[in-house]
Amino acid sequence: MQTKIIAFDADDTLWHNESYFRETEKKFYALLEGYMPEHSLAKELFQVEMQNLELYGYGIKAFTLSMIESAMQISERTIEIEDIEKIITYGKELLQMPVELIDEVESVLQALYGKYKLVLATKGDLLDQHRKLTKSGLGKYFHHIEIMSEKKVLDYEKLLRRLEIEPQQFVMIGNSLKSDVLPVLELGGTAFHIPYHVTWAHEHVDRDIEHENFHSIDKITKLLEFIS
Amino acid sequence: MQTKIIAFDADDTLWHNESYFRETEKKFYALLEGYMPEHSLAKELFQVEMQNLELYGYGIKAFTLSMIESAMQISERTIEIEDIEKIITYGKELLQMPVELIDEVESVLQALYGKYKLVLATKGDLLDQHRKLTKSGLGKYFHHIEIMSEKKVLDYEKLLRRLEIEPQQFVMIGNSLKSDVLPVLELGGTAFHIPYHVTWAHEHVDRDIEHENFHSIDKITKLLEFIS
Repeated sequence: MQTKIIAFDADDTLWHNESYFRETEKKFYALLEGYMPEHSLAKELFQVEMQNLELYGYGIKAFTLSMIESAMQISERTIEIEDIEKIITYGKELLQMPVELIDEVESVLQALYGKYKLVLATKGDLLDQHRKLTKSGLGKYFHHIEIMSEKKVLDYEKLLRRLEIEPQQFVMIGNSLKSDVLPVLELGGTAFHIPYHVTWAHEHVDRDIEHENFHSIDKITKLLEFIS
Repeated sequence: MQTKIIAFDADDTLWHNESYFRETEKKFYALLEGYMPEHSLAKELFQVEMQNLELYGYGIKAFTLSMIESAMQISERTIEIEDIEKIITYGKELLQMPVELIDEVESVLQALYGKYKLVLATKGDLLDQHRKLTKSGLGKYFHHIEIMSEKKVLDYEKLLRRLEIEPQQFVMIGNSLKSDVLPVLELGGTAFHIPYHVTWAHEHVDRDIEHENFHSIDKITKLLEFIS
């Protein structure tokens, strides 16, 4: 069946994101360096984030709340109020970061635009993702924007139903094997993986994927060798 | 032109919501009662919420972060870490509130289902609204779920474009004159206002609306006298 819809993940696929989170984490570790070594701070923060994931979901507000909670736990409630204020400021700064496109993204979208329906399919915070899309200037290429609270098989099923399309006509492109590749392959779609240089621990998949509908490419322009 | 799509706001239109926020605010005021009288606390909190609105958007995580920031300001950074922890807990409790349907909502949806395309169009936090919809058991009535970062004229325009429908075929039902009624009337759609017994100050509109496409009804069943 012919490809009709090409869907792109946003963070770390179209624009840089995880690297900004990493910079914020560094500030958080520096703030709390008196309490624990960095690798322990990282472990504590990640644990709080995972505990809160079901309740808070993804995005910067969730991350900010988890940093505050984690800082109180790590310091056994001895942290200064001024440090909580700093964490809130880190979160606000993160929400105001510029959107920096990944190389060649726009030329690839231009090449595909008009030939396929292009969809943006991303997790994260609703307002924040809308803001980043606006800042990116890429909004005009997308037929449909889907901001998803999760990217599991069931979530893709709903998306395909809404787009009125068969999995065999659907191609997904993203940097996360867990969120962009595995569920799409399971449904019978095609998936392209473009690794980003940093991956959040939660998105890490520790296995090799062998599948006829799976392609791993090192940059987005390679997509045009498969689809054009 | 004939009505094709009926869209419902969610919070305080399908289920109770604002009243839970009010209960949380009461706890927040009790926590800080040593610093200021309640009306001043309310004013301070609302001011911080409004300052953060563009950056944080709507929803419980935004509200929690604004409560924390506001508590630090009100107390001039003398608040105890334990109190910050309490505020985080208030936010988590709010995220876990049961979903209590407003009277007769389900029978009205049942009566309209199959005759019109029913849409849920709500602001708020992505994950939280999905969770409430699931808890409500109302998901099966809706053809389309739209969680919007804002509900202004431009946002409704996008929604109508996505639904491939003319404003004259669109009916919106909700409790907020500002978000559910005025922008829809401006576009040429029809709007039903069902007041809820409490309105967040941000949604308050201080004027009478006279418009041929505007109806104010006191409960959702009255809708069936106009549309059936």
